[in-house]
Amino acid sequence: MKTRAAVALGAGKPLEVMEVNLEGPKAFEVLVEIKATGICHTDEFTLSGADPEGLFPAILGHEGAGVVVEVGPGVTSLKPGDHVIPLYTPECRQCEYCLNPKTNLCQAIRSTQGAGVMPDGSSRFTTLDGDPILHYMGTSTFSNYTVVPEIALAKIREDAPFDKVCYIGCGVTTGIGAVINTAKVEIGSKAIVFGLGGIGLNVLQGLRLAGADMIVGVDLNNSKKEMAERFGMTHFVNPSEVEGDLVAYLVDLTKGGADYTFDATGNVNVMRTALEASHKGWGESIIIGVAPAGAEISTRPFQLVTGRNWRGTAFGGARGRTDVPKIVDWYMDGKIEIDPMITHTMPLEDINKGFDLMHAGESIRSVVLY
Amino acid sequence: MKTRAAVALGAGKPLEVMEVNLEGPKAFEVLVEIKATGICHTDEFTLSGADPEGLFPAILGHEGAGVVVEVGPGVTSLKPGDHVIPLYTPECRQCEYCLNPKTNLCQAIRSTQGAGVMPDGSSRFTTLDGDPILHYMGTSTFSNYTVVPEIALAKIREDAPFDKVCYIGCGVTTGIGAVINTAKVEIGSKAIVFGLGGIGLNVLQGLRLAGADMIVGVDLNNSKKEMAERFGMTHFVNPSEVEGDLVAYLVDLTKGGADYTFDATGNVNVMRTALEASHKGWGESIIIGVAPAGAEISTRPFQLVTGRNWRGTAFGGARGRTDVPKIVDWYMDGKIEIDPMITHTMPLEDINKGFDLMHAGESIRSVVLY
Ligand SMILES: NC(=O)c1ccc[n+]([C@@H]2O[C@H](COP(=O)([O-])OP(=O)(O)OC[C@H]3O[C@@H](n4cnc5c(N)ncnc54)[C@H](O)[C@@H]3O)[C@@H](O)[C@H]2O)c1
Ligand SMILES: NC(=O)c1ccc[n+]([C@@H]2O[C@H](COP(=O)([O-])OP(=O)(O)OC[C@H]3O[C@@H](n4cnc5c(N)ncnc54)[C@H](O)[C@@H]3O)[C@@H](O)[C@H]2O)c1
Repeated sequence: MKTRAAVALGAGKPLEVMEVNLEGPKAFEVLVEIKATGICHTDEFTLSGADPEGLFPAILGHEGAGVVVEVGPGVTSLKPGDHVIPLYTPECRQCEYCLNPKTNLCQAIRSTQGAGVMPDGSSRFTTLDGDPILHYMGTSTFSNYTVVPEIALAKIREDAPFDKVCYIGCGVTTGIGAVINTAKVEIGSKAIVFGLGGIGLNVLQGLRLAGADMIVGVDLNNSKKEMAERFGMTHFVNPSEVEGDLVAYLVDLTKGGADYTFDATGNVNVMRTALEASHKGWGESIIIGVAPAGAEISTRPFQLVTGRNWRGTAFGGARGRTDVPKIVDWYMDGKIEIDPMITHTMPLEDINKGFDLMHAGESIRSVVLY
Repeated sequence: MKTRAAVALGAGKPLEVMEVNLEGPKAFEVLVEIKATGICHTDEFTLSGADPEGLFPAILGHEGAGVVVEVGPGVTSLKPGDHVIPLYTPECRQCEYCLNPKTNLCQAIRSTQGAGVMPDGSSRFTTLDGDPILHYMGTSTFSNYTVVPEIALAKIREDAPFDKVCYIGCGVTTGIGAVINTAKVEIGSKAIVFGLGGIGLNVLQGLRLAGADMIVGVDLNNSKKEMAERFGMTHFVNPSEVEGDLVAYLVDLTKGGADYTFDATGNVNVMRTALEASHKGWGESIIIGVAPAGAEISTRPFQLVTGRNWRGTAFGGARGRTDVPKIVDWYMDGKIEIDPMITHTMPLEDINKGFDLMHAGESIRSVVLY
């Protein structure tokens, strides 16, 4: 079949919206009609050329929601008409990782996913001239129709609006999951969130959900304050307005350091500040942000010997097929909010405007509606 | 009263054994006759001048065992004749830290302890000329008699030999506790221990006690192998004999990385190797070693985002008054071994020989017998 897609032809170039060929699903694969997709920093990271593992030409996009159109041989858990969210972190429930309760990093299809192909080693996308186009993160939601492995699809309830719950495919789950699955924040905790963008806001609402007492938000941009308060922030700190040492300021504000700190900036200096602003004896600092290639974090080991804990999280520690449907329920039940974070929507033709809005810092999330 | 002690008069100088004055115990303090004391790297760190917080003149020593001689006003948990191990990490059971199950770092007397004085701000030691001599780590076990706060004394059984269980005052508890309290290693785990000295050997026997399946020891010195095997090591790696990348070698040996890794070298490059040789998704790396002043650890944040966990431990995460008596029981019951690690004993007069043996790498533990 043919489908419309925004194709990344090379690093640093705008996406090109065009018709492409899409082969039907092979064994254990599913054809999905994408109804909506968010535009996330990770797409931008790859498109810019900064991602050392980025491959082109490819169809980016990993934050979508849609409907099953057709299932390949062997698919048992999904049928045409099911509503789904594609998962860039799959959940096979069989591999060494899925069987270890300490991790969500299913490795079943990791190597082919990283190589931009389906598990059988080939791509389902080609140009109308027959040249191959690669998949991206196993999801390629910047295509109106896409093929996704069965283990990389979460089945969700049918009354959930695609244009909102697509965001659960990455940002919402990453932020809330970092709090709930990775940090396992307890009621009454004190926390600091560095970076109040699309991820940081979801960390905030995760903390509110977890019953944290003090939720400090840190951002260089004062315009982030209002929205952050709406998502649960109790104290705002702009580092450029703090005199003296930021760590000392935050330790003082939290009366000894925060129980949990989160980096949602991707800046390695901020990651160090986050660790050192966590409480001696038991503070945990969780890295969510993705740093530039080659950048390193550092600190004196004494910070760890005196009881701080340095960790990270990918996809919020969530096991997608199990956890994503629950987060959709939380949204539908009003336990979490998504709507105010979807600041812009656009048709696929205008997808590059979504990237422009991100660069300008004007959007929290832009969503493409097919 | 007068007592004999080995006094550290200044950084880099040998200890001087001399008579000193010792005032009796004030409120909530206890006079202890030290029967035996180990000589640990931390004493050496301070004596050498490398410890930026080192103060002189002082009576070092923090790995002792002895008998209560007299108790000051208000002491209720100890009486003359009780056998005790002094604790450089006290356990007041009242402070914010003691009441938080996530840490053992009691802060009740931290500032005075760091300043080399008893909780009332004064020292009990003076020279025969009346000049003050400082305490060290609240313990000063290089004196035949010493005054220690009640909350910094673990009461132990009376049939335990002082010349062996003194080692539980630091090295044994640090190594075993890192496994049991900090890492909470599960049966069947794979582990790597970097540095097979006095601490590393105790990490090994902690891992054996915890039922680890694969216990890899890493040391630059092949002569450490035999003793390490005796304490539970199943595989030995000498990095200088590994061709190519050590991390890749260890990840291969452990089939994906170790569930737990421990640094017992104090070298920040080794700490990085230890982190990176832990398993993607769930590996935990525990820093035990104390690095030179100013040295920093570093790694790419991706190591943490993909599920590794970087932590540290002080005094093996043990709460001394509660845990040390249990570890003494384990020794007396034959669950753990100490005797082969006490490679040298000497009278107080020869204490500098103990430091010489440590420098030469000839001893695991030298113990001074009073
Ligand atoms: N670990 C994961 O699974 C995962 C998933 C998705 C995104 N991410 C990463 O999370 C990070 C945040 O993503 P986002 O979409 O929220 O980005 P964003 O650009 O919307 O937000 C970043 C925020 O950080 C603030 N900021 C920048 N530098 C700062 C500093 N030095 N101090 C304080 N605040 C600072 C900015 O003002 C902005 O508000 C990115 O690095 C992204 O790649 C990680
Ligand atoms: N965190 C705590 O509570 C605590 C308590 C006591 C001691 N310590 C620290 O633990 C560390 C170990 O103490 P120890 O008494 O066992 O010392 P040690 O000198 O007896 O043993 C260190 C071992 O590490 C080996 N080693 C050195 N460099 C190495 C390298 N690059 N690769 C592999 N092996 C290497 C040496 O050959 C030696 O066998 C020290 O830094 C000490 O200060 C920490």
